[in-house]
Order: sequence, then structure tokens, then C-alpha cells
Amino acid sequence: MLSPIQEYLKTLHSRYASVMDGHVADYIPELSKADPRHFGICIATRDGHVYEVGDTRQSFTIQSVSKALAYGLALEDRGEEHVLARIGVEPSGEAFNAISLKEGTGAPFNPMINAGAIATCGQVLPTDEQSRIERILAYLSGFAGRQLDIDEAIYQSESDTGHRNRAIGWLLRNFEIIDEDPHETLETYFQQCSIRVTCRDLAIMGATLANQGVNPLTQKRAIAAEYVDNVLGVMATCGMYDWSGEWVYRVGLPAKSGVGGGILAVLPGQLGIGVFSPPLDSQGNSLRGIRVCMDLSHELALHMLNPAATPRTAVRVAYHGGEVTAKRRLPPSARETLRRHGSRIQVLALQGGLIFTTLEPVIRKAIQLADAGCLHLILDMHAVVMADAVSLRLLSELRSKLIQTGVRLVLCQTGRWKASLTEAGIAASAIYDTEDAALEACEDALLLEVTGATWRSLGPMALDQCVLFQHCNAEDLAMIRQELAPRVYEPGQTMISAGEPATEMMVILSGNAEVQIRDEAQNRKRVDVLTSGMTVGEMAFLDGSPRSADVIAQDQVRCLVVPRQWFVDLTERNPVLKITLLQEMTREIAARLRQANIENGARQRG
Amino acid sequence: MLSPIQEYLKTLHSRYASVMDGHVADYIPELSKADPRHFGICIATRDGHVYEVGDTRQSFTIQSVSKALAYGLALEDRGEEHVLARIGVEPSGEAFNAISLKEGTGAPFNPMINAGAIATCGQVLPTDEQSRIERILAYLSGFAGRQLDIDEAIYQSESDTGHRNRAIGWLLRNFEIIDEDPHETLETYFQQCSIRVTCRDLAIMGATLANQGVNPLTQKRAIAAEYVDNVLGVMATCGMYDWSGEWVYRVGLPAKSGVGGGILAVLPGQLGIGVFSPPLDSQGNSLRGIRVCMDLSHELALHMLNPAATPRTAVRVAYHGGEVTAKRRLPPSARETLRRHGSRIQVLALQGGLIFTTLEPVIRKAIQLADAGCLHLILDMHAVVMADAVSLRLLSELRSKLIQTGVRLVLCQTGRWKASLTEAGIAASAIYDTEDAALEACEDALLLEVTGATWRSLGPMALDQCVLFQHCNAEDLAMIRQELAPRVYEPGQTMISAGEPATEMMVILSGNAEVQIRDEAQNRKRVDVLTSGMTVGEMAFLDGSPRSADVIAQDQVRCLVVPRQWFVDLTERNPVLKITLLQEMTREIAARLRQANIENGARQRG
Repeated sequence: MLSPIQEYLKTLHSRYASVMDGHVADYIPELSKADPRHFGICIATRDGHVYEVGDTRQSFTIQSVSKALAYGLALEDRGEEHVLARIGVEPSGEAFNAISLKEGTGAPFNPMINAGAIATCGQVLPTDEQSRIERILAYLSGFAGRQLDIDEAIYQSESDTGHRNRAIGWLLRNFEIIDEDPHETLETYFQQCSIRVTCRDLAIMGATLANQGVNPLTQKRAIAAEYVDNVLGVMATCGMYDWSGEWVYRVGLPAKSGVGGGILAVLPGQLGIGVFSPPLDSQGNSLRGIRVCMDLSHELALHMLNPAATPRTAVRVAYHGGEVTAKRRLPPSARETLRRHGSRIQVLALQGGLIFTTLEPVIRKAIQLADAGCLHLILDMHAVVMADAVSLRLLSELRSKLIQTGVRLVLCQTGRWKASLTEAGIAASAIYDTEDAALEACEDALLLEVTGATWRSLGPMALDQCVLFQHCNAEDLAMIRQELAPRVYEPGQTMISAGEPATEMMVILSGNAEVQIRDEAQNRKRVDVLTSGMTVGEMAFLDGSPRSADVIAQDQVRCLVVPRQWFVDLTERNPVLKITLLQEMTREIAARLRQANIENGARQRG
Repeated sequence: MLSPIQEYLKTLHSRYASVMDGHVADYIPELSKADPRHFGICIATRDGHVYEVGDTRQSFTIQSVSKALAYGLALEDRGEEHVLARIGVEPSGEAFNAISLKEGTGAPFNPMINAGAIATCGQVLPTDEQSRIERILAYLSGFAGRQLDIDEAIYQSESDTGHRNRAIGWLLRNFEIIDEDPHETLETYFQQCSIRVTCRDLAIMGATLANQGVNPLTQKRAIAAEYVDNVLGVMATCGMYDWSGEWVYRVGLPAKSGVGGGILAVLPGQLGIGVFSPPLDSQGNSLRGIRVCMDLSHELALHMLNPAATPRTAVRVAYHGGEVTAKRRLPPSARETLRRHGSRIQVLALQGGLIFTTLEPVIRKAIQLADAGCLHLILDMHAVVMADAVSLRLLSELRSKLIQTGVRLVLCQTGRWKASLTEAGIAASAIYDTEDAALEACEDALLLEVTGATWRSLGPMALDQCVLFQHCNAEDLAMIRQELAPRVYEPGQTMISAGEPATEMMVILSGNAEVQIRDEAQNRKRVDVLTSGMTVGEMAFLDGSPRSADVIAQDQVRCLVVPRQWFVDLTERNPVLKITLLQEMTREIAARLRQANIENGARQRG
């Protein structure tokens, strides 16, 4: 099925395909050979999905678009202050080839005019292995996600006619903005402008800048994250020659155009756009390119300064410990305590990216919950896709402040953020792998606070303390003791296997067992933990379906086995006992259903 | 408890409180009276939460900060093209008071230099009720969320010394940028600059721009949404005098400063910042203000061009019709069909803001599901906080394309977006109020497709077709028929009331009943629907707890009543029948528990 987005781009392309205004650049003979009919539009998303229409695979020379990317390399090689001391970042309000240098220092106004771009070229450091141009070529290839090359004919043509640029080069040498014979720098600059790209490459390069510098196709970093905003900054204020102010006003996307007919535009954090059409307008920008970008910005609402949807709060859903409990079976009394006091445990399930703006409401909510009597606050991080240094620092500070007021903050499912969290000062003991483990720890602490004792039975359970047998009379207990055989499982032993027929159920007298299911990837997932006094495997036993989960002994488990046939025969032999047992099982399952429904409501709420 | 964010601002404030560099503006005598020690920092979030430290309630004159906001009023009064024809939007690279007008037209370079700001003032249209300055004052008050006033002493001082601005005024008149005697325009401009604000006002004004033009405190629109990007655009490229390029590079927040010592900065879509400190640097920007903004941008990672967290996909969680089903009781055979074929129904629960970037992955996912055999696609909109025109249009186009391939797209919980969705061309019949209603419609269609018949029982149910009695023998059925009384409820009648003791359960012979709970706001919420053949109220009946929900007859309901005492006595009178009934109830409850656990897993996955 054709995506409506692809369809839209086709419409946009055909809207301007027949527009033949503007003139192909002709200041060098080779460039004037470009076919004015070539026309491509490409959008690449931050996760590397590419929409393209028209001549998106046609190669052409990158020209001034290279200025923005090479600036990133100069920053990486020399650092921000060194580069800023030699090349300004103020818009000049003048044409691209104006020889506008600042009074006194001779520094070019910005790296997007020729003077600034040549100076930028001069900041790139050759290495023993690679010349300047080899480094620049490799650097730009990283943005494109493929090996780029140089159009030698264009390069020769550029070099043969680049007299004005040579003059600029010598002026820069004069002001010691570049500190060697400008010849090699100029040749490097001419080669840099002659790198061949496609419209698709430009979109991927844009998506790489949108993705904090990581190429979304190769997943390799093309530019250090700290310089992405600098590159986009000069694109935003100086990228479109002396039409830059109007571009920000009307299109609102950091962009850079080249006389080869290419435009690279970026919606920061979101996507990259490439447009290719050789005919230029009077400012030297691709004429169809400008129109396409204006329409894209307007029709897809991409203006960066008026974002309709921005990250707001990282709180995905909030629930308390009376609604969602750890996946383990508790004795009825403990269950009741949690139902009554569970709101002292609060869970905030977070989502998306954690930055100042999204974490700020989380902090507000946490303080509000603490003021309302919450004693244990769990932050579930499983839907968090990123966390910046600021948010990690604030989380750690929040935790310290909560501790001072007697509130415990723990985190769970922190995934790849775990190391960063501990580095930010959050104790490893406050980080749990699963939500269940975090809930368990908080529930145990709460139950201890409320009842003054641990809920865990110490030692083996007497028969009449077991849930299934708790309302049996002495006679029935004697019959059970006599007729039902005990069985012992060693730690790690499988008590029940998923898929097998259910010919028995068991009552745990001592020890603990874990119920596990396997997900689609065959990973085991705990869904319940049972301890002494509890019944195992009664659901399949009752409804005759095959076992739906594995049950594994965690430590040595002693249990009493209830065979199906014994239970069937009980109808005749001791119907009153059977009724007692059935009622007990039904009550237990009904209680679990009630809790599951409460949990469902809570999880759905978010 | 003190928020760590508040604490951070306190630290930031004390970092610069003792810095006494810079000079209070003295070009007019009144301004030079400002106390250089005054220093306030304020952050206002998009939802109106305010963090403030220092002298945030001290009033001072707004000066050039007013230029940005008054520009919005001119746009609203005259439209973009009229204003652009008279005032450019290109950075001039020159000081604020330079008389820089474009060659030929005489248009000021941009509205942030004095020439542009005076021209802007001249575009504001007085009305019969309000003079220009009254309109400007009311307009700015809308941004601040409170009534502002004019500092008359400063105004007089501005007017007494504004000779250079008068010269600019006459030049503008000469080029017909303003078309009347400039005297009144200039006085308006002097008054505009003399409007009194506080640091807190500036932050709220910024938050209003961040919030698409709606003041987050008053919830009133201060500026038409379509002009927000224009105002922010000129702030971004021209807001900080001839330091604007460096400001974008280093701070990356559209901003405007004034010689009164105020700076207003905006993180688009997210928050507003106000800083107040009278001593200025050589460019005329508040010296401490610049430092505070640089630190805020760096330390809270607020640079707009390198957003770490941006909206990615609107898909919050995806599940299928075998995992989550409508809240109604189905006969076991229908339940089984759904379990096997449920993946033909797919639910995408969406979240956050729907814009091009967040909806694009939803479209991809929808196409992928359709290609994989999904026939019914439900988009649950309940966590959607906004939807722009682009996303509404794309949703509608997606639906049309899916219909062509035989896939039905329906939406639910669309809330306040419903009207916009139908306007965008989505049939009202494809929009359901609740997820349940959407699931029900899709399940009914799927069951019909698979089985070729409706699952709904037509007419009354025979006793042995009822779930509870389906394994009873003829003798038992006769006893039930004889001993249990029928009862009839009229449509709307309450069959069971939450909180009451459970003295009976019922078996529906014909008709339908809805189980409802009340949420914290006492709104009724459907949690189950029962039809003929099903048992009502068995859970509380079994475990002796009070009723947890209301049950209301939807149409005329005929049922058989099972009194608690009769059930208790059955142990003695007919234990085998009691065992049969208990097993039936347990199986049913167990099946529901299994489904609830599957649903929980699916909902938790997101």
C-alpha cells in the first residue's frame, strides 16, 4: 500500500516539476552543464526511514552545503574557542562571495560565506594518514552513510576560475586567520565543494544532524554531539545567504544551500530534508528548492519555532500499591493490608526522553505525593528512550531530598541508563531490574511498617494454615493427611511444565516456587511467586486445560499432592469436603480476578 | 519540600549576585536611577508553573523587549505581507540605534532595531475605543496575564531626549514606511518602551509564546497562533542586537533584551525565561542576564537546536483483539474464536501530540499491520493531547487508503478532536466514544466473518444452555426449575447495588445487563455486559464480600434467582449438584482471570 506521505510528496513534486524559472549556475563552465529538469525531494526521519520522489539518486556537487558540515570538523579538530576567535557567527547580511571581514581582526563574519568557509577549511588538521581533503571527504561520508567521491572535472573548473577565492585566501593569510600559504587550503576548499552527493544523501545528512549527530542508517556517530547545535546554529542564522532572516521567518528550518542546486534542511530532533533542482534564484538558492521547503514547512507544519507537539511530562501513568502489586501470591491478611495502605507506595511509570522540561513535572508530582503521605516512590523507567545528564542529575538530587523527608525513591527497569544513574549518585541498591522486584521490596517494607512483623511464614506450614484447607474440620484434615502424599522438589527443579495435562494440584507446606511464562522471544518471565500455605496449579486442574505456565522450585519445596482422580472421587466419598475445597479455590481465584481487574483499570488509565 | 529545580535557581542566582560589572543605561536620566543590585531569575513552564528567585516582582521598564511583542500586534492588524513590505526580517549586524534602512525602499532591516520598531508601532491600528498605546498596553497585558501600566516619569524622560528616534521617524515618513506625521507614532513608541513589567512577567510572556500564544495562567490567547513563529523568528535572528548570531550559537533560545535590564527568552513549545539585572554590557544587553541565560541553556540543556528529547512516535502501546477484548461476557465458543483470530483486530493506543513527525510512524505501522492480515484497526486517542491539521488530514487519507485494501480503520476516545476528525473527512460512524464500543463493533464483525453467524443468542435461553447449569442432569434441572423463582427487571432497573450484602446470584434467561462501577469522580463506567445464559453477581455471592459494582438491566431482563440460603442448604440436600455448580463457577472465573492476566501483560508492554 502506498503511504499517504509518499503520495503527498509526489503531489508536491509534480506541483513544481514544470516550473522552469531561475538559472543554472554558470560562473564555472562545468556547472552550467547541469540539467535544469533534474528535480528530487527526499525526507529522512530520525530513525532512518526515507521518503523520496524524483531524481533523488542523481549525483551533483555539494558546493556550499559542504560549508556547514566542514565547520563541524573544524570544531572537532580545534575546539570552539579557537575557531570562534578566527571565524565569527554573525550574519553578514551580504552575498555569499562578499569579502566581508570584521574590522580590526579580519575574521570572516561567519563560516557560511566563502571567506569563512575557506578559513574553516584551514582549521581542519591533516594527519599522517590523511590529507585535509581526505579527512573532509571521510567526514562528509559519515553524514551520508556511504563513501562519497570528488567530481574531478568540476574541481578542475573550480580551481581554474577561483581567482576571487584566491584573493580571499591571501587576505585571510594577511590577517593570520590561516597561518600558511593559502594555496593548499584553497585547493582543499575547491575539492570540498566538488564532492558528489545525491538529494537522498542530503536528507540523510540532515537526519544525522536531527539525530544528535548519529547517522540513522549506519548508527555511527558522524559528529560529536556537543557541536550539533553549533552547526545548526550557523545554518539557522547564515545558511541561506542574504535571505537567511526571511528563511527563518518563513520556513523555520536550519538549512544550507549550494549552487549545485542542493538544499539540506533540518528539523532539529526530528528529520532531514534534501531537495535538488539546479536552477537558482537571484540569491543563489535553488529556486524550486526554496518553494518546496516553504510548502513542506507550511503543509506539514514543520516550522521549528512553533512546535505544536513537544515533550511535556514524562509521567506515562501513575498508580499506587493498592492497585498494582508484585506478581506473587500473598496471604489474604497481607493482601488486605496492601489494599488498605497501598497508597503509601506510588508508582510513576515514565516514558519518552528525560530532559529538564519532561522531568520537571515528574519532580513536581513526586513532591506532591510525598507531601500527601507517600513513603515509597517507584519510578518505572521501562518506556524511557533517553535521559540526558541534566535529568540524571535532577533525579539524583530529588532522591536525596526525598530521603531527608523520610521518603524512599527507587527505580526499576532502568536498562541501559543504570550505569549513568549510579554515576549520577543514585545508589545501586535503589535500582531494581524489574517493576516486580521494586514493588516487592516496597511492599515488604510497608507490610513491616504497618504490622510490625514480616508476612513471610518462617518454617513449615501446618495443614490447617494452608489456604485450601483452612476451613476443613479435624476429620477432613485427618483424611487429607492420610491419603495425600507429600513430595519434595529440590531448588531449580521443575514442578509443573507448560503444555502438559493437569493431573494434579499441589499445596506448598514449605519453600517457594516461581511461576514463569515464556514470551515470544522465549524469554522466561515471572508471573507469580508462591510460598508455603498456597495452592499450585489449581486453574488448569479445575478447567481441564493444559498447563499454561512453568512452575520452578526456588528453594527446597515440600508439598502435598492432590491427584485429579482423588478429587473426582471426593464427590462420592466426601462431598462436603469437596465443596469446602471448591469454595476455597473459587474465593482465591475470584480475589485474584478482582485484583487483576483493578490493575487493568490502573494501567489503562495512563 | 524544596524542589531541586528551585534550589538550582538559588545557586545560579547567588553565583552572579555579587558580580557588579557593566553599567546601568544612562542615555536618559530616569533610567540611570535603576538599582544595579536588583537581580531576578524566573522560569515559567508551558503549563504555568513558575519558579522564581531574587527580585522577580520588582518592576522596571520593558524597553526593547516590547519590540518583539508589538510586532505580533502589527502582524495581527495588517497581515504578514503588508508588514513584510515595510519592515524586513534580515539581521543588520549593526547596533540597535543604527539608522539602517534598505537601499531603495528605505525599509528598516528588521523590527528589533529602533527604526523597525518605530515602523512597527506605526502599523498598529487605533480603534474608535482605543488609541494605539492603549491597544499595545492591552496586548502586552495579555502576554503577562495581568494589567500593565506605563511609567510616566520614564516616558517623559524618553520623550524629552528621543531626538535620534525622531530623526528615524522622519526618515521613515520620507520613505512612506509610515504614512502620517510621525509625532504620534513616536510618542506611542516612547510610551510602549516605558511599560512597567517584572521579571516574572517576562517569564510568563515567554511561556505564552512557548504555549503557541495562549497565556498559561489565564488560558486566554494573547497572540494568534499563526504569528507565534514569526515573532520568535525575528527574536531568534535579531533579538540580541549585534550579538544575535553568537546568542543563537551559544544560548540557542529566541530572546529579546531591553536596556531596562530585562531579557525574555523562549524555548519554543516548552518554557519561558525572564531575567532582570540593570547593568548592561557594551552591546546593551543585561550583563548578568546574558550569563544567566548561557548557564541555563548549558546546565539545563535547553539549546533549541540540539533537542535530546523530541516527540518520536505517537504509538503508546499496540495490542491485538486476542489480548484485549471488550468488557462484556462472551459465550465460551465466541471467546475461543477471538483467542484464535483476534490478531485480525489490532489496537494502536496513541499518545502525546499528533504532528507529522509523530504520526508518520503510526502510518508506517498501520500499513505494516494491514499487509500482515489485520482487517480491523482501532486507534485509541485517549492519551492524545493535541492533533494538528496536518495529522488530521493524514489520518483521514490513511483511512481512505486502508478502506481500498479492505481494512477498516476506526477511532475511539477522540474527545475534543471528534469534530476536527469529522471535518477532516473521517465518517462519524467510524468514531466510537469508548475503546470498548470500538472493540465490540470489531469483535462482532470478526465473529461474523469467521463463524458466519452472530454470536448473540436470539430469544430466551433454555436452562441447560445457561453456563451455570450446562452440566446438570435432568433431575437437577427439574429441581432448579421447581425451587428457584424467576424475576423480571424492566429496562434501566437496578438489579444489584454496589455496597450491599450479596444474598443471592442470578442467571439471566433473556435480556442484557450492564455491570458498572463508579470512579473517583462518581462517573459510571461499564466494566462488563452480560446476556442470556450468564451468571450475575456470583463473586460477592461466593466470597461473602459486599457487592463491588452496580448491575443495571439494559432491556427487559428475565432471570432465575439463586438465594444464598438455598445454595448453603444444597451442601446437605444435593451435594453433587452443588459441586457441579461450584466447578462451573470456578471455571468461568478462572477463564476470566486468564484473560485479565493476558490483558495486563499487553497493557503493561507499552
